[in-house]
Order: sequence, then structure tokens, then C-alpha cells
Amino acid sequence: MSEQDNLHPMRHSLAHIMATAVQRLWPDAKFGVGPVVENGFYYDIDLGEQKVSESDFKKIEKEMRAVINKDFAFERFELPVDEAIAWARDNNQPYKEELLNDLKRAGTTVAKDLDAAELGLAANGESQVELVSFYKNGDFTDLCRGPHVESTGKVGAFKLMRVAGAYWRGKEGNPQMQRLYGVAFATKEELDQYLTMLEEAKKRDHRKLGQTLDLFLFSDMVGSGLPMFTPRGTVLRDELAAFSNQLRQRSGFQKVWTPHMTKKELYEASGHWAKFGDELFLVKSQETSDELVLKPMNCPHHTRIYASQQRSYRDMPVRYLETTTDYRDEKTGELGGLNRVRALTQDDSHVFCRPDQIEVEINGLMAAAAELYSTVGMDLRVRLSYRDDSDAYLGDPELWETAQGQLKAAVLSNGLNYFEQEGEAAFYGPKIDFMATDAIGREHQVATVQLDFVQPDRFGLSYIAEDGSATTPVMIHCALLGSIERFLSVYIEHTAGRFPVWLAPEQVRLITVNQEADTLAFAEEVRRQAFDMGLRLTVDNSNESVGKKIRAAELYKIPYTVVIGEKEIGGGPLTPRVRSDMAVKEGEAGSAAVADFLQTVATEAKTRVSKSSF
Amino acid sequence: MSEQDNLHPMRHSLAHIMATAVQRLWPDAKFGVGPVVENGFYYDIDLGEQKVSESDFKKIEKEMRAVINKDFAFERFELPVDEAIAWARDNNQPYKEELLNDLKRAGTTVAKDLDAAELGLAANGESQVELVSFYKNGDFTDLCRGPHVESTGKVGAFKLMRVAGAYWRGKEGNPQMQRLYGVAFATKEELDQYLTMLEEAKKRDHRKLGQTLDLFLFSDMVGSGLPMFTPRGTVLRDELAAFSNQLRQRSGFQKVWTPHMTKKELYEASGHWAKFGDELFLVKSQETSDELVLKPMNCPHHTRIYASQQRSYRDMPVRYLETTTDYRDEKTGELGGLNRVRALTQDDSHVFCRPDQIEVEINGLMAAAAELYSTVGMDLRVRLSYRDDSDAYLGDPELWETAQGQLKAAVLSNGLNYFEQEGEAAFYGPKIDFMATDAIGREHQVATVQLDFVQPDRFGLSYIAEDGSATTPVMIHCALLGSIERFLSVYIEHTAGRFPVWLAPEQVRLITVNQEADTLAFAEEVRRQAFDMGLRLTVDNSNESVGKKIRAAELYKIPYTVVIGEKEIGGGPLTPRVRSDMAVKEGEAGSAAVADFLQTVATEAKTRVSKSSF
Repeated sequence: MSEQDNLHPMRHSLAHIMATAVQRLWPDAKFGVGPVVENGFYYDIDLGEQKVSESDFKKIEKEMRAVINKDFAFERFELPVDEAIAWARDNNQPYKEELLNDLKRAGTTVAKDLDAAELGLAANGESQVELVSFYKNGDFTDLCRGPHVESTGKVGAFKLMRVAGAYWRGKEGNPQMQRLYGVAFATKEELDQYLTMLEEAKKRDHRKLGQTLDLFLFSDMVGSGLPMFTPRGTVLRDELAAFSNQLRQRSGFQKVWTPHMTKKELYEASGHWAKFGDELFLVKSQETSDELVLKPMNCPHHTRIYASQQRSYRDMPVRYLETTTDYRDEKTGELGGLNRVRALTQDDSHVFCRPDQIEVEINGLMAAAAELYSTVGMDLRVRLSYRDDSDAYLGDPELWETAQGQLKAAVLSNGLNYFEQEGEAAFYGPKIDFMATDAIGREHQVATVQLDFVQPDRFGLSYIAEDGSATTPVMIHCALLGSIERFLSVYIEHTAGRFPVWLAPEQVRLITVNQEADTLAFAEEVRRQAFDMGLRLTVDNSNESVGKKIRAAELYKIPYTVVIGEKEIGGGPLTPRVRSDMAVKEGEAGSAAVADFLQTVATEAKTRVSKSSF
Repeated sequence: MSEQDNLHPMRHSLAHIMATAVQRLWPDAKFGVGPVVENGFYYDIDLGEQKVSESDFKKIEKEMRAVINKDFAFERFELPVDEAIAWARDNNQPYKEELLNDLKRAGTTVAKDLDAAELGLAANGESQVELVSFYKNGDFTDLCRGPHVESTGKVGAFKLMRVAGAYWRGKEGNPQMQRLYGVAFATKEELDQYLTMLEEAKKRDHRKLGQTLDLFLFSDMVGSGLPMFTPRGTVLRDELAAFSNQLRQRSGFQKVWTPHMTKKELYEASGHWAKFGDELFLVKSQETSDELVLKPMNCPHHTRIYASQQRSYRDMPVRYLETTTDYRDEKTGELGGLNRVRALTQDDSHVFCRPDQIEVEINGLMAAAAELYSTVGMDLRVRLSYRDDSDAYLGDPELWETAQGQLKAAVLSNGLNYFEQEGEAAFYGPKIDFMATDAIGREHQVATVQLDFVQPDRFGLSYIAEDGSATTPVMIHCALLGSIERFLSVYIEHTAGRFPVWLAPEQVRLITVNQEADTLAFAEEVRRQAFDMGLRLTVDNSNESVGKKIRAAELYKIPYTVVIGEKEIGGGPLTPRVRSDMAVKEGEAGSAAVADFLQTVATEAKTRVSKSSF
């Protein structure tokens, strides 16, 4: 068994060990469920009037280490379900008793509200449960399906992280328990690495950086999930969208424009209304009886543009591009920073093509995605999302089969790192999801390429084939950044706000040593030159010390800061200060004439090189 | 009396002359009202079962000319109101009788539903009417306030235009009459000019051109007033917005981004909810109880960005720019092409400044507007819109007084052609409206610059003044294009779709003489070069004759068309065909090497010169 495969039983064993420690410290503790979660484990406990707080963690961890040091074996045994219920009653474990009663009554269907494995239950098969398994480590026994590690000494490195309220079985109205979270890894090094990553992630929190770097804001008057972007944040949005568009425009995509609203008829025709009708924002006209909605996606609108002209096989593919904002009625509780918003701007595109053009089109889009993510310094991995056997999918199963094969062929020919997953497809077709790994090792779902055999048919789209027959085109949906807001939440943390020159809201800041007329005139002349070159250069001519002005520029993580004094005004070379993370190659640092310096920055921006190591 | 001043009595006299002709042709005709309207006049008539149609116009015009040739004097006389009523009864004119009875009963208040002048009534003063004036020309008499021209021979040139149904006194349920429209001018030349303009306007109809040039479309599934833009139309939108933005960015405006939706609280705070609440699209969340609306304007959102940071007098002015779509719940019946839409994209901007910065900021915006409209080839005129004494305006009247003075000073110092109008201000401040005249002489309201002393105060905005006190800034709203959709409706008709190179969706089309490999390769190489230079160049390599391909390019009004044959492929110079309306200066036409030709087009696009005469 590899270390990775062993992590699950290790973490689950630590849940038991934590429960052991809790029971020793609070003998009246009543236990709920204690499953494994990402990076660790938790256990729900009920201490009655008493409450565990973070200040108790040291005590609990000490007790856990005592259990670990004893190296108790995890001993498995089984009891008939009625004896198990008696055990729970005898040990004053009402939550376990409830679970066991449910299990007895309904077999494995108890798993409907909580996964049987998470419940720590031995759900042996599909029908009536007869035997329930237990694990015993030293003085602590828990009903549990397992598996566990051999003994308490073999659990790797762990740390308790936090405690939070949790309703029993996740249901409001049920007793409120306390959920104790811990993280665990095979080695101390891996744990430390993870904790360092968490620290780093906290420092990089995009909500915090969004504020300190003055990038975006929310307002109670406007509402949650509806971010607004300052001039600095808008530079990031616009530059990213322009790059993403450019990668597709050069292969023939053309921008289109559609409104953010439509009659709901459009989605009745597309099939979205039946599927997602209750996730849409409804719009009420006070002047008419029109039933309108805000668009949650752009494909149905784009089919209208396609359908506005007669198309021939020679016109195909028709490729539309639109960076536009979609609205989705997310629950307020699920909103957080830019990660999940109600107003999401997609760098969306749609190809309408002949079946024989699918693979070429997908190849092009995958090349674009690869270039984009390499430019922003993130590793890509690809998930091929197929349908499963459920009835959640529309369209001819045979078409699905063919389409899935074509996607895979394209991925293989691109040599991309990929994996396949059933049941993750959109309802209208299989798709390719791109997963990008950020600077601190977290993986995020970003771009998607989706095939669609359903919508063109539903909308009656066609082109005249070479033989003169009206033929239904295939649609390919693609967003490279995905939602720009969500991408920014990832990218701001990826870079810790140290944006490369092409994205930096301020690329250069000039700092004047004084406020004399010739200094100001010189700075203004450089600013004008830079503006004409398309550079974002600002002047700090405030009445502050040079040191204070430099520190102010550092706070905004500006790539280049240039102090303007007598020498520079007299025609001497500029000596830019370079942001500390930026790798300066020999010959690039040091002094340069004004025009040369500006040209260097312009080239750096234009080529989108990144000198940063995030 | 100038000819212009004389037009009104001429047109009004023609209404009488038309009635004279109608009465001669249909002696039982009963007459309603016959007022002067823009460019002409009408008369509402009731012929019972008979109906006038356009085929009768010749007959009516002939009879009118007979009356004109007789040169009857218009003789004025007065009767006491009761005698006037008797006259109406004796002459079987029940509509006139009704009007006279109303007039007798209520004095001038009869004018509530139709203007007294339009009724042709002698409403002598505010109180009880005693005498009613009549005008007689030959055998026709009508009650009428006048004035008229001296005699029927002095009425200039006229033409009957159309006939349409109209309810008596505009009220549904009243008898339906027929409204006969005519146009009239002082001279035959002016009339012909006007009729030519109408013909030309019909040919230029932007809805028609939008279809034939493949610029935009509507869809029943999406809904009325919600246009979608094809790739060609999107080029127009994007290029116009980019130019408009650039004119402001160079003087320090910065782009921001805000969502299209907000809680209605924002507009309660701004004061818009109370004023315009029933003109907004209401948005219903199915997940929360949030009361949301679509934004009909952007200023309240922009105040939130301003308020997100502490501002000092040194930071002012703060200048935001956002091209974004607003939604207004227009009645379906009022929607037409791009002229009036429910989704209107504004090239909006807001300045937050100190009171002492107002004039400089307004000067800058007016210079930007002047450059924009000179570039698109339209003459500008400026309307200064002030408040009147009604209670429709918010804010301190003294601030209004000051603001109006500052606007006027700025207009005067810019040397702009202007006029002043009371009662046209926005509810939050006085404004400057820009009126542009198009190629066929029609004037359209376009850009606006609006002062606002109300919103900053309502939102509690402030900056720290030099003396350390928190001071309220002034806001300046400005859109240069106004609504891009509406601007396009004007601009497409202004140019008749013959867009200058900087705006042309396709700037150059290459036409291949055949489909051989080296021809295609050459064309593709030129296309790639052009793309890299930011040009919009397409290749028509379809299997059609060169003549047919040239005609196809002409239909799209493409500025340059270049036929690619053996000579060109062999390195010979290109010989572009230039769109017929484009003035070609000596030395510019004729042959040029590929690189030179592309560079010429690129320069033409970059400098936004227009070689067209629309």
C-alpha cells in the first residue's frame, strides 16, 4: 500500500484517537460521526453544557499523543445489530444508538442523508444489516466500518485546526454538536508543508489583497455577490480578457454582443428552463407582461445570431466570442469574495462547425488554453468529463459516444496530462475541464471546452451541406479564463498580488524628489510619452519624503519605481528600482535613457513575459 | 417678417385651403381641427361612410391649386360665441359646435386636451370667452385664431403626404376621423429638398441597412428592444466606444466595472427610486428575498467606488469611465430599431471634483465631444438645460444658480454654438446637451454633460479639504456617444452604411481570381500580415467569378477591394478598388506594394480620417 493510499485509514484512525482523547478528558462526551475529509478528519461531539474551544487543543493533542505513544492495536470485532444497539445504550451514546436503529430499520438506506462510510457504520451490502463492525483501541471502542491502521502508533503527523458548530445529521432543528477538525499527513515534513501553505494562502487571501491593493469592493447597498472593480482591478479584468480574446481572434473568432436579458422563451427552446429554471433571476417588466430572465449563459443568444443568416458548408466554422456578464441566483451563504459571485463575467466563445471540423477546432482551443496558462505561470491538467447512465443528459446516446471519442483523440494528440471522469458532463454534451495548479500547490478548475449536439438541434440550426441538404451543425462552447471573477480570485492568490508588467495596474511610478516646476514638467513629459506608448505610468509628486513615497509604491507592488531628481532632469539615465520578486537578468538592471527604459517596459508588457517568481 | 417666421401662417393657411378643397369635393365633410405640425399641417375630417385614400390626393391637390390660383383674401371677422355656435349648427359642423360649446362653458380650459391654437379657436384671454374669430377665404369659412397669410396665393409650395385614422380629440371611443397630412415650404426648392431628404432617409433606414449590411438583429425569443450584434455590428460598437474612451483616458479618466444589477436600496439612497421606480426592471431572486433591480444608470454604483477609499483634495478630481449596458423598461410600442431600446449601452463617465475644478473638467469634456463629432462628420450645437420653477428638482436652488452660471461660462469659453432652455434639466442638476446634425440635415440629441450637486450629498461622499475638513465633492456625468445603440441608429443613417476605414467592419477584401494553391497561400499571407497590423482584412476565395465577387464586396460597402491574380502573386503591386464615395487624393490611388498598401490603410484607420462624403 502506497503512502497516499494509506492516508485515508491514517486520518480515520486519528478521528478515533481524537475521540479517545475527548472521552478521557470529558467522560460524558457523546459522539456523532467522525469521517475523513480533504487533508484530515473531524469528529462531531456533544459535551452538553460544556464547549470545547481552541484553547483546549493543546490538552487534547497531548492526550492524543499519549494514546499514540501507547501504540494500541486497532482491533476489529462484530456484533449482531441488536447487541450493537444495547452497547450504544449501555455506553450512553444516543447518537450511535439512533444511527444503529435507523440501520436496523432501513438497511443501508440510512445512508441517504449521510454517507454510510462517513457514519462509521458497517453497512454490509444492500439489504438487511445483520452484523455491525466495531474497532477498539485501548480503552476506546467505536462502531466503524474501517479500515484502520494497525495500531495507534502508525498515524503520521497531525494537528487540530478548528472547532465549529454543526447540527446533528446536518439538519437545522437537530441538536447542535461541536465539530472538531484536524489535519494529518504521513510525515511531519508534509504536515509542515501543508501548514506553511495555509499560512501563505492566508497572507494571499484575495479578499484582503483586493482591499489593500485597491482592486475591487462590495457594497451593502448593491448586494452580496455583486462585486465592483476599481480602476486598478478593471485593468486586470480588461487585460486578461483581451489576452484570452486575442488567443482566439487570431484563429478566426469574431466578437459579438448580446443583451443580459431575454424572454424566458429562449431558455424554453434551449432546454435550460426545464433544467435550471429555478436558478435564474426573474425579471419583471412594469410596462408589459413580458416574462424575462437574466442570462445565466450566452449560447442560446449566440444561436440567434448564427440563425440570422443562411449558412453554407463553405462558411463553416462560424466562431463567436463574447466577454459578457452572466447572472446566477447563488444562495447568499455560498458567496465569498470573487470566488463565487452572482455576476460572473465569462470570456465565452461558441463555434458552430461541421462534424468533420470538431477535432481541429478543439485542438486550436486547447492550444490557446495551454498558452494562456503557461503565460500566467500555472500548470495544467485536463479532465475529460463524460456522461454516466443517469437520465440527466439530453440527446442521442450514440452522438455522445462519438463526441467523447473525439474529445479524447484531441487531448491525446495535444499530449496533455489528463484523466477521465464519468457523470461530470454538462446535460447537453461531454466536456474537457482544465485544472490549473497555483504557486502554493492548490488545484483549481478553470477553462472548459464543451461539445454540444443538443442545442443546435433544439434551435433548428442548419447549414447547407455540399450536397445541398440542410445539415445540423455541432456547437463547441469554450471559456478560457472561465469566470473572470473566479479566475481573479485564483490569480490574485497565485501571484500574491505581484502582477507581471503586462497585468500590473501601475507598471511604473515616478517619484519626484521635490515639487519644483522643472521636476514636475519633466515627470509630466515622461508620463505623456508613456501614455502614448500604451504604458500605465503614474507620478507621485506629493509633498512627502522620497523614502515614504518609495514605501507607498512598494505597498501597491508596482514593478518599477523611478526616483526623479536633478540628474535625471538634466538628461542623466533613469535608475529604476525593480520589485524584489522580479528576476533581473544581467544587463537589464541598471541605468537607461528615458526612451530606452520605457521601450524595455513596453516590450515586457507586450510579450507578456513574467519576471516574477510567485 | 422673415420667411421662417412666415412659414407658420403659410402652413396654417394651407390647412384651410385643404379643407376648402375637401368641402368642394365632399360637401358633407365635417371638420375637426387643422393645426400646423413640424414641416407642414394636417386637418382631421369626417366623411361618414366615405374614406379618403392616397389615390384622392391628386384630386385634392388640384382643387387646392384652384383655390390658390384664385388668390382669395383671408378675411377675419368675429362673432359672439352664441352666434358662432349657431353658425356651426347651420353649417352642419358638429365637431366645431362641440368645441364652441366647451369653449363657452369652460373658457380657455377647453385647451386641456388639445392646444387652443391647434383647435383654431380664438381663445381671447384666460377667462370667459365672448367673441370668437373666423377666417373666410372665398366660399370657405372656418373658426380660427389665425394668423393667416394675406391671401390663398401666398402659401408657398406644398404636397399631401399621407392619411391616417385619428380619434376625435385623441380619445379612444370617440368617432374615428381621417387625418390628412401635408408638408409645405416657402419655395418649391425647399419642398423638393425636403422630399429628397425623406427619400434619402428611407433609403438610409438603419433597420434596413442593419439587415443588408449584417450589423444587428432582433429575435422574438429574446424580446423586443433587445438587439444582438453580429461580428460586423460589434466592430462598430467596440471601435466607437474605444475612441470615446480614449478621448477621456488621455485626460486622466480610468475605466471601472460595475454589475448590471443592484439592490433597490442603492436607488432609494440616490433618490432615483422615488422618481423613476416604476421605469425600472425588477429582479426577483428565487433563492433569497433580496429586492433587486437592473441598473438604468451607473452613477450610484460609481459613488460606491469613490466612497471605498478616503480621498484628499490632492486626489481630486477622481474620474471614472465605464461603457456598460443599462436597462430601461420602455413600453413595447415605443421601441423601434436601435433608436429606442430596452438595453442601452452608455459610454458613461463620472468626475468627482472640487467646486473650483468644475469649469476645467467641463471644458475638457466639451473638447472631447467636439473632437468626436468632428471626426464622425457631424455639426454640433449645444443646449444649456436649466431648471424651471417646478418642484421636479432636488437640491439647493442657490447651488443650481451657481452651477448654471459655470456651465454657461464653459460653453462661452469654448466658442460653441449654443442656446438655453428652461425646464430641461435633470432632477439632480443642470446639463449641457449636444445636438448633432447628420448628412441629410436632421438634428439629433447625442452627448450630455450633467452637473450634479445632489447625489454626492445624498450618498455622504466627501474628501478632506486642504484645511482638514470633510467636504462634499461635485459630480459631473458625461456620455459622449450617449447610448451606443441610439448613436448607431443615427450614424448608420448619417453614413448610409459607408463607414470610414477606422469603423468599417471589413476594411479590405481580397478577391482571388482562382483557387489555386499559390493564390490561396499568397492571400493567406497577406491576411496574416494585415491581422498582425490590427487590420480587418478578409479573403473571398470562393468558386465564383471575379465580377460576382466584386459585386458581393460592393454590397457590404467595403472601403478597399483588391483582386489577386498572377501579377500580384508574382510580386507586382496591388491595385485596390476604392469605394466610390471615398475621395481619393492624387498619389493615393493606383498601385502599391503589399506592405505599403497595408500601411496606408493602417494609417488611415489609426488617424480616423474619413475620405467619405456621405
